[in-house]
Amino acid sequence: MLTPADVAAARDRIRGHIRTTPLLQADTASLHRDSPPHADAAATVWLKLEQLQHTGSFKARGAYNRILAAAADGQLTEAGVVAASGGNAGLAVAHAAARQGVPARVYVPETAPAVKQAKLADLGATVVAIGTKYADAYDAATADVAETGALFCHAYDQPEICAGQGTLGAELLEQTGGVDTILVAVGGGGLLAGIAAATEGRAHVVGVEPQTIPTLHTALAEGTPVDVDVSGVAADSLGATRLGEIAHGVATRTGVSSVLVDDADIVAARTLLWREYRIAVEHGTAAAPAALLAGAYRPVAGERVAVVLCGANTDLSDLV
Amino acid sequence: MLTPADVAAARDRIRGHIRTTPLLQADTASLHRDSPPHADAAATVWLKLEQLQHTGSFKARGAYNRILAAAADGQLTEAGVVAASGGNAGLAVAHAAARQGVPARVYVPETAPAVKQAKLADLGATVVAIGTKYADAYDAATADVAETGALFCHAYDQPEICAGQGTLGAELLEQTGGVDTILVAVGGGGLLAGIAAATEGRAHVVGVEPQTIPTLHTALAEGTPVDVDVSGVAADSLGATRLGEIAHGVATRTGVSSVLVDDADIVAARTLLWREYRIAVEHGTAAAPAALLAGAYRPVAGERVAVVLCGANTDLSDLV
Ligand SMILES: Cc1ncc(COP(=O)(O)O)c(C=O)c1O
Ligand SMILES: Cc1ncc(COP(=O)(O)O)c(C=O)c1O
Repeated sequence: MLTPADVAAARDRIRGHIRTTPLLQADTASLHRDSPPHADAAATVWLKLEQLQHTGSFKARGAYNRILAAAADGQLTEAGVVAASGGNAGLAVAHAAARQGVPARVYVPETAPAVKQAKLADLGATVVAIGTKYADAYDAATADVAETGALFCHAYDQPEICAGQGTLGAELLEQTGGVDTILVAVGGGGLLAGIAAATEGRAHVVGVEPQTIPTLHTALAEGTPVDVDVSGVAADSLGATRLGEIAHGVATRTGVSSVLVDDADIVAARTLLWREYRIAVEHGTAAAPAALLAGAYRPVAGERVAVVLCGANTDLSDLV
Repeated sequence: MLTPADVAAARDRIRGHIRTTPLLQADTASLHRDSPPHADAAATVWLKLEQLQHTGSFKARGAYNRILAAAADGQLTEAGVVAASGGNAGLAVAHAAARQGVPARVYVPETAPAVKQAKLADLGATVVAIGTKYADAYDAATADVAETGALFCHAYDQPEICAGQGTLGAELLEQTGGVDTILVAVGGGGLLAGIAAATEGRAHVVGVEPQTIPTLHTALAEGTPVDVDVSGVAADSLGATRLGEIAHGVATRTGVSSVLVDDADIVAARTLLWREYRIAVEHGTAAAPAALLAGAYRPVAGERVAVVLCGANTDLSDLV
């Protein structure tokens, strides 16, 4: 069971290794499209600028926590670390491993974009492209771990990973002096789990997902994580096929809410963040502010809302 | 004479109208290219994220201060406000005028990019394209003011404009609890003047300019502002032909330093900010961090340095 104490331990462990990311207070009227402004114009909205984190996403928090915890326990050997991810989790593991001076092998499907593979290699990781589906890369990664004794870093469903992501929640409570609500994008749910555990009893966490990848929504409806179809503009970062067990446990225990947004709103929110704030984020990240923009989540007057901007590993060419 | 009291008055006036922009602590080793890291790895470097300001640059501070001060004095009539600028100063004036409900006429040379003219129009300004040089637009703007009695908003050389820009300096001293040094890009010097006045006796201000547009450098060398040739990658934002009188006065009085960077370092710093921090800025803004990158300014161990990131009105297509 993931607790605030796990998150506090993670915070001590990764301090100095990760960036404390700043907050920007938003002009609430700019964040929803109804005109004239409805009641949430009277809410206070903070943008948590976690896209400025090392490697461009919150995933560095979990990766550092997992790897530093293993190092402290003498589990980090010259076999190094292994991840299965063509995306942000892989970048974060590669970064943390390089800083710890251990090798990283990152397994990706052969379909992973060349530019993402090159970024992993730039960080010093050995990239192993194998199979056509994420599951193929995952299986190869676990086989490597079984054979070499390397440390496996899951993309979302490990306690140290979730506790590391949760440090974002603890940090933002401290920075703001408290919020009522935290809007956070959900893929496998590691970020959601960490933040909900870190802020239990102090803030209400709302998981936001594309309608095209409803892992949390479906898990809450069915009472257990189940596979969903994956598609849409945010599939590269939110494209886990099912919610993690840890996330499901924390979500159920702490009573997180789930809202869905459609791809058009995600695209609109991403464009708005650049036009109004000169903040560039990836599509998965834009799901969280899209919940405000589309009115899928409507704060009440006086509500203090934090919107987590969790990643910026994005092609900028369509932002003008 | 521009004083800290002018800046304090500006701060009270524009509070609630402009954004308080956040700071991010930088990894100093990432900000210079010498390897192994030299002494400034032991400095503390803050990035002041002013590119997140309304209209994407610090110019909103000066524009709001000028327009709100005039409104308070009953000088804001239905003739509205006038600016001469195809760039950030024009955007800022257009934004502030729209929020105050008065018309804005922005004079630009016919050579101003269509996309910039469109942004001005989007903000509700009337764009008047005239002549081929900035001086033509400037002359037309002053003629408008003489005829209509509109409020003229200079791009840098007016006390309220400089005092408004100075609020950035006061804000950053408060946010950091004090710094030793502030690196700031210079065009006409409004930002430099405001910050140096706001922080006089509390921080050392270093003006950074492209070698291709040395307005401050030449003014300090000659003892008076003189025209310089204008060229290079940062000419769109730092391309004033000479330092303003106010900036020259403040620079001399407070003892600001001047350093020069070349275009290659500006380009490299801009790329580095995106790669390492997912911060997108325009070339003129990248001059300030370029001074660290190139070693044109070298902090000593323990020095607390703030680097002002002042604008992000940039084409993103070359950032990868
Ligand atoms: C930018 C970004 N946001 C959100 C997520 C979803 O995170 P989680 O799988 O922990 O739900 C990811 C996962 O890769 C991500 O990269
Ligand atoms: C982004 C940016 N930085 C710096 C400057 C220079 O400001 P100043 O003319 O006050 O020196 C400008 C001026 O337009 C600008 O737009």
